[in-house]
Amino acid sequence: MIDARCPLCDLNDKDGLWANDELVVISAQIAGVGTICRVVWRAHVHEMSDLGLAERRAFMDTVFAVEATMKRHARPTKMNLASLGNFVPHLHWHIIPRYQEDAYFPDAIWAAARRPGAEHPLSDELLRAALCEALGQPRKSRL
Amino acid sequence: MIDARCPLCDLNDKDGLWANDELVVISAQIAGVGTICRVVWRAHVHEMSDLGLAERRAFMDTVFAVEATMKRHARPTKMNLASLGNFVPHLHWHIIPRYQEDAYFPDAIWAAARRPGAEHPLSDELLRAALCEALGQPRKSRL
Repeated sequence: MIDARCPLCDLNDKDGLWANDELVVISAQIAGVGTICRVVWRAHVHEMSDLGLAERRAFMDTVFAVEATMKRHARPTKMNLASLGNFVPHLHWHIIPRYQEDAYFPDAIWAAARRPGAEHPLSDELLRAALCEALGQPRKSRL
Repeated sequence: MIDARCPLCDLNDKDGLWANDELVVISAQIAGVGTICRVVWRAHVHEMSDLGLAERRAFMDTVFAVEATMKRHARPTKMNLASLGNFVPHLHWHIIPRYQEDAYFPDAIWAAARRPGAEHPLSDELLRAALCEALGQPRKSRL
């Protein structure tokens, strides 16, 4: 189930912080906010309800482990979780630490900015080590 | 765990489409989009990673059952799921059917509107019946 036109089907494991056979965790920088993580399902599936129960649970267990890890290290005001996929309909979750002084708070990060925003960066090295501690060693030797 | 200042601690079961001891499913109308559902955890908890594994799984199983139910009846372009809580830090999930002709597509519904938007309403009667079919009878006699 690979769609040649889909940028998330193209994801290179080398870009990941953690991975197993089903999913890859990546980081991204959002201007005015800082570091967020995304958990990307490897197969080109559109909706959570297209997955089976065991797949959904495995996916969400990882999403919540990333949430807990980011919360511990980023100490945000609030964690935000979202699976939208209107631009790229390939299942992926956004895990977003939010801060009162970020560009959008208390609105969603997809709203208009309220202020320039102080950015809270987290290094890939820190996240990679913290995710290994939370989730065990990645189960893909390529990472 | 009730916070007197929290509007979601105040939720009246009579407003719900479906409920059990842990959570309540409600509907809402979003201008330019139509009917969405929210799944609200009864206890005043801030983050998904503050719940135990069994609670998280029960919560998400309901969220995904609502997603599947809305997808079947609303036939949207894409389903969107989000747990933000920056305004009201009491766990609740938004389950949002999205349409190419809604006010915001393909942006998130928290972005600036791109067009007036065609609204897709779903009646509470239909949703209540469909959720009972998907989830069984509500386990609160007050509904």
